[in-house]
Amino acid sequence: MRSRIERVIIALAKERIDAFLVTKAANVRYLSCYEGDDASLLIASKKRFFLTDSRYELQARRDTRGFTVKIIKSSLAETIRDLVYALKVKRLGFECHDLTHAQHDRLMRSLPGIELAPVHDMVERLRVVKDAGEVRFIRESVSILEKVSTRFKTILRPGLAERDLAAELEHFIKVAGGDKSSFDIIVASGSNSALPHARPGTRRIRPNDMVLLDLGVGYKGYNSDLTRVFFLGKINPRTKKIYDTVREANRRSIKAIRPGVEISRIDEIARGFIRKKGFGNCFGHALGHGIGLEVHESPSISGRNHTVLKPGMIFTIEPAIYLPGWGGIRIEDMVLVTRKGCEVLTDDIDK
Amino acid sequence: MRSRIERVIIALAKERIDAFLVTKAANVRYLSCYEGDDASLLIASKKRFFLTDSRYELQARRDTRGFTVKIIKSSLAETIRDLVYALKVKRLGFECHDLTHAQHDRLMRSLPGIELAPVHDMVERLRVVKDAGEVRFIRESVSILEKVSTRFKTILRPGLAERDLAAELEHFIKVAGGDKSSFDIIVASGSNSALPHARPGTRRIRPNDMVLLDLGVGYKGYNSDLTRVFFLGKINPRTKKIYDTVREANRRSIKAIRPGVEISRIDEIARGFIRKKGFGNCFGHALGHGIGLEVHESPSISGRNHTVLKPGMIFTIEPAIYLPGWGGIRIEDMVLVTRKGCEVLTDDIDK
Repeated sequence: MRSRIERVIIALAKERIDAFLVTKAANVRYLSCYEGDDASLLIASKKRFFLTDSRYELQARRDTRGFTVKIIKSSLAETIRDLVYALKVKRLGFECHDLTHAQHDRLMRSLPGIELAPVHDMVERLRVVKDAGEVRFIRESVSILEKVSTRFKTILRPGLAERDLAAELEHFIKVAGGDKSSFDIIVASGSNSALPHARPGTRRIRPNDMVLLDLGVGYKGYNSDLTRVFFLGKINPRTKKIYDTVREANRRSIKAIRPGVEISRIDEIARGFIRKKGFGNCFGHALGHGIGLEVHESPSISGRNHTVLKPGMIFTIEPAIYLPGWGGIRIEDMVLVTRKGCEVLTDDIDK
Repeated sequence: MRSRIERVIIALAKERIDAFLVTKAANVRYLSCYEGDDASLLIASKKRFFLTDSRYELQARRDTRGFTVKIIKSSLAETIRDLVYALKVKRLGFECHDLTHAQHDRLMRSLPGIELAPVHDMVERLRVVKDAGEVRFIRESVSILEKVSTRFKTILRPGLAERDLAAELEHFIKVAGGDKSSFDIIVASGSNSALPHARPGTRRIRPNDMVLLDLGVGYKGYNSDLTRVFFLGKINPRTKKIYDTVREANRRSIKAIRPGVEISRIDEIARGFIRKKGFGNCFGHALGHGIGLEVHESPSISGRNHTVLKPGMIFTIEPAIYLPGWGGIRIEDMVLVTRKGCEVLTDDIDK
């Protein structure tokens, strides 16, 4: 199998790009294994440079392989200019979804005579299919997630505030071997669960509450993401109907996942089922998202994505029904596309 | 005193901008009080729109005042196009340090006939001088920080791993009333402290270690930032000399802070002192940075910043000496510029 860098160089040749400036942190990490911030890469067919400032010099020299480390003295634009002229670059690619308008403007002014070519998601496209090492890290992240979810069930009880529960889980992620929470943990009780991205607040859990938990574990740069809803007391028939609808939408869409299927089809299976049950207006977001070095990355599992599934893709499936004033139910799993179908990575976590 | 929005509208009129698209999260929060993600503002002299997607609709309607909430159906660019044409905008300002090249390109293509005007740090400039409410939040953040720092002294002992200490502190931030850690806490022991942005690892604290702690507390959107170095055993004369040099550089630069002084002068006082003591090559980063809604914001306290100090500015002063292989000493305080001088917000925290 070709190395990550080799695949980038092939993609650059196709677009007739002599050198490629990589600025997005997750892409820098993917290509260089460097775990820090504030670093860029300049990749040409024969030479690779790692650009950072003096704060990160030791880390860069220790962690990167196959790159020449250059310490930025005055500005990134000037450092790039020197390298670009030395390498005789005519066409310089840049990550147009990451570089700001101001950074682009500065680069353009410091590189007269050099053509700047916007590159759209080149490294992101490589990252869509995970390699064996990446799958291993994500599995480990999910296995820590499972411990944290189990922990939640043991500590959840009336009287506790949402934010105290979230703080306890965030700490437990580290105790269980995770590096950090992948994102701000959502613990949303009662009608707060109607906010898809609720913030844990001072509301205390009540008897008979329904509590939505959405959390993920960062592990060696990789992430996981899971949503479950817990019921403290009896479940009334209407709640049960909504819960069963979401669970069935989750199950049906997952059942359809296999290589060759168009992504929009997966979204429509869940969305169509929710619509048929009369909750068509209550599910406003996409069905899921790719996950890896970023919590949200390609592919988006939405009705507008017409690419087809491939083995090695990892993404979430998270249908939901939100009823403002009442609450929301979302059931989110993580799925790995296999050669013949898919594996639900979060299958051991009860729902 | 004029409201934040009023000051923006005055600044826009000066640049002959009819409407201003605010996309940077901290600026959206500053102007609208909205605490979530994925939201933008469109500000015209008479009308103000708050743009977000369906996931944040309830939060937006609950939290924002004086804005008309618009839910983005297909894309931000299309939503803006409809509003811009309805408002008869001819010149649309955008935040060029935030909007990516690709977003700008998309906006340009969806707005034929509209002039797009890059706006440089307009809201950031307003944010440089903190108002009374902001100072209150930052003081509260510092007071929680003080508790966390005290906690560190009580738990620090040989045998503990850096990452376990960091995890314990991160949890304690929430127990003490903070919302979150402002950034990944640095606990760097022994020679790890030579990395200005070290990551806490599995290294265990040893007797006679020196341990660098760099942490901050997020509180109602505002941040704090502090660095202290702790010694577990006896301090040898060379270490003492380095420590005293950094402390004296910190003290001298702080003593010079008062309205009207050029920022580069403050940087030079600390840097010149460190140079005079023979460590000129061991302090590569700026002396400090503004802090508020972002951990790093304007003003940068560097030799290249020739603006003058004003009452209400809040920033860090963090001289350092790093010796690769040996370790590093950094002493970081937070300072509020007052009418006649300055107040060290972190003065109650021992150094």
